[in-house]
Amino acid sequence: MTVDTRNILAKTIQRLLRRRSYSHLRKIVRRAHPVDLARSFSVLSLNEQLKLYDLIDDPAGRGVLLAKLDIDDLHPFAAAIPIGDLVVASEHLAADDLADLVENLPPEIGRQVLEGLQREYSEGVGDLLQYDRKTAGGIMATEFFALAETTTVREAIARIQKEHRNVETAFYLYVVGADQRLSGVCSLRALVTAKPDTALSALMTRETFSVSTDTDQEEVARVVSRYNLLAVPVVDADQRMVGIVTVDDVIDIIRDEATEDILKMAGAGEDFIETKSVMSSIRIRLPWLLATCGGGIAATMIIGHFESTLEQMVYLAAFIPVIMGMGGNIGTQSATIVVRGLATESIQVHRLGNVVLKETAVGFMLGFVYGVLLGVLAQFGYQIWQLGLLVALAVVFTMTMAAVVGALLPMTFARFNIDPAVATGPFVTTSIDILSISFYFYLARWLFRL
Amino acid sequence: MTVDTRNILAKTIQRLLRRRSYSHLRKIVRRAHPVDLARSFSVLSLNEQLKLYDLIDDPAGRGVLLAKLDIDDLHPFAAAIPIGDLVVASEHLAADDLADLVENLPPEIGRQVLEGLQREYSEGVGDLLQYDRKTAGGIMATEFFALAETTTVREAIARIQKEHRNVETAFYLYVVGADQRLSGVCSLRALVTAKPDTALSALMTRETFSVSTDTDQEEVARVVSRYNLLAVPVVDADQRMVGIVTVDDVIDIIRDEATEDILKMAGAGEDFIETKSVMSSIRIRLPWLLATCGGGIAATMIIGHFESTLEQMVYLAAFIPVIMGMGGNIGTQSATIVVRGLATESIQVHRLGNVVLKETAVGFMLGFVYGVLLGVLAQFGYQIWQLGLLVALAVVFTMTMAAVVGALLPMTFARFNIDPAVATGPFVTTSIDILSISFYFYLARWLFRL
Repeated sequence: MTVDTRNILAKTIQRLLRRRSYSHLRKIVRRAHPVDLARSFSVLSLNEQLKLYDLIDDPAGRGVLLAKLDIDDLHPFAAAIPIGDLVVASEHLAADDLADLVENLPPEIGRQVLEGLQREYSEGVGDLLQYDRKTAGGIMATEFFALAETTTVREAIARIQKEHRNVETAFYLYVVGADQRLSGVCSLRALVTAKPDTALSALMTRETFSVSTDTDQEEVARVVSRYNLLAVPVVDADQRMVGIVTVDDVIDIIRDEATEDILKMAGAGEDFIETKSVMSSIRIRLPWLLATCGGGIAATMIIGHFESTLEQMVYLAAFIPVIMGMGGNIGTQSATIVVRGLATESIQVHRLGNVVLKETAVGFMLGFVYGVLLGVLAQFGYQIWQLGLLVALAVVFTMTMAAVVGALLPMTFARFNIDPAVATGPFVTTSIDILSISFYFYLARWLFRL
Repeated sequence: MTVDTRNILAKTIQRLLRRRSYSHLRKIVRRAHPVDLARSFSVLSLNEQLKLYDLIDDPAGRGVLLAKLDIDDLHPFAAAIPIGDLVVASEHLAADDLADLVENLPPEIGRQVLEGLQREYSEGVGDLLQYDRKTAGGIMATEFFALAETTTVREAIARIQKEHRNVETAFYLYVVGADQRLSGVCSLRALVTAKPDTALSALMTRETFSVSTDTDQEEVARVVSRYNLLAVPVVDADQRMVGIVTVDDVIDIIRDEATEDILKMAGAGEDFIETKSVMSSIRIRLPWLLATCGGGIAATMIIGHFESTLEQMVYLAAFIPVIMGMGGNIGTQSATIVVRGLATESIQVHRLGNVVLKETAVGFMLGFVYGVLLGVLAQFGYQIWQLGLLVALAVVFTMTMAAVVGALLPMTFARFNIDPAVATGPFVTTSIDILSISFYFYLARWLFRL
């Protein structure tokens, strides 16, 4: 019911632990959602975490708690409890959650957990780990309801009743033909309202959405969200059904893909790195700064080339930051709009012409506004007409050019199937810097010769 | 089954329209998903769109198609068909989809559609439109199953069978007490497997998640995704159940909120603006450029202040871009990581100290690497030891400071409950520019006096 339970729950747990009110605490633990318990871990000390964990009676609850822990909390905690306990708790997880947990654990501990698990579990997880982590195969759950076409409604309901293990999706019932080939889908609602003797083949919808094990997770998310599905079946190369991806996984994918795009645009890697060590954080961020560094060196050389011009009019230097800044800012605006538009399908790749045309118009008009403003200020400050004109024209040119480059680069990348997010950030601003500084100094030399 | 159906479907439709194979086309239209038909509109001409629309027999299908159209396609199309047709198609939409459609339509047409609808429909939509668009009340569906606690399983199943209208959620059955107050939830799966005479009160889970009509949509999305729900009930101030938000709406929210964060960070408004007109696009982007412009003017004045220093050593100007660029880039990295980390709850506001400490370490080490590199290059190019040292120290200082500012600003904003995404982009880079240029010139003056 309450929404930010992290602190309230954690404080209550701490107070009760201090008072040793274990029976009261046990009640709270039993009623709390494992997700909330996991969230409270970030506030508790390791010692408190261990005591709390001991109070969870249900091994399935322990497993879910482990699967929900942040990597920051999981590593020290997993190192502090016996491997055997980790194995027992893991046994109750669905294969996809277990695969996630094993990946989050320190590698050595993860390996030991897999070894400790009964063969049937670890094989399922091994199968999942074999697929690329970012494909349908890597994220699917392998527990699902798939019944033969000839099954009757009565038998199907009996099967649902009999299933004890936590089957992630109980809202769709998949119908398979010979060789486990997916032939249709039947909603639980249809099942409830059908006559008991009807065969599933008569009840099911024949045309059904599916993805294959190697479909990219972004594409999986697109199918599920576009058609408002609760789950999508995953088939192997022979069209045999091997798993499902449920909508809660799709939510995680959409969030992760947005994070990935945001980080790429800022030149800060792909995966979220704040939780990583300082050294790995440096390793990820270092190469992205190289583009800016290279662009900066180029700008240094361009300005060096115009040293004699600068010597005569040293005040030219004062306007370098504002021209670069305005260009960088509007270029980032355009690039961000285009990258995000492509990701959310608000912009279509084949509409390159329209988008560039519009950005040109927007860039020119914004450049005109700020060009006049900054030109007037320069004229006011230095009383040199060439300087006022130079600043005004440089701003108009830079901002128009920056808007076009910011839109064109990601659109072009997308057309050649290169991730447009990579094109943004460092690359866009670096090319804008070089173009704007060159234009500024060439124009300056020409104007002052007049 | 196929995934990028837009072009294939559109081309097929165009070919069949040219050949006037209407019966063939009618079959395709009947089998195609309305979402795919809507997507094909962006490729078709208005004339082709109208012909295609006529071939859809089912008014419900027409309604869904309209609701799924991009605003770019919807406006010209809605203007081209009679209001009466829009009304008939709208009647079959769920209240929340209808509210979205009405908001997407040009205001005058939207008003006429509402007037044309039967009172019961438009009142429901009117209720929805009264809530803030970005709250649970604004996004909820008002059609849901809620039965009294005393209802038996048999009666519940009969009710599900009887319901003909498209009820968005058939996977949860809500149980209400006196005055429509939410008292529990019952899964369809539990219903299927229970004895027919069981009362829902015995079957339901009593502790259930809920949000209130004024809960922010971001919070709604967080509840649904944190606890892996398929839908969350919405209650009014008196705890009466008034609607539900389903997981497919949550997916849209998560995507929109990510878009909003990305655009804010780039200083490009909040809502996606590429589809807006050039003029409104300019109006949204203009004010964000003001921060950069102000910062640029400040930088101009700082450099102007050091004009005598620059006159003696004009080569100092050549390194302004690279120092600003490196600072801006690493600052954007840090800010982006922190903003996204806060949004996805990978970073907690109360961990300010840790985050800033880590960014300081990362900034210093990256600054050291690039400082040495650029210092050596400067020394190599100009053979002046003070310049080499100056560039090296300025890069180390700028990059360390930029990483700290980039992390500190959004963390501080978040602590005061101001959206951290607003703090990023223009504000971070502008403050970094001013600090780095000041440091560079002060240090230059001091070093060259030695």
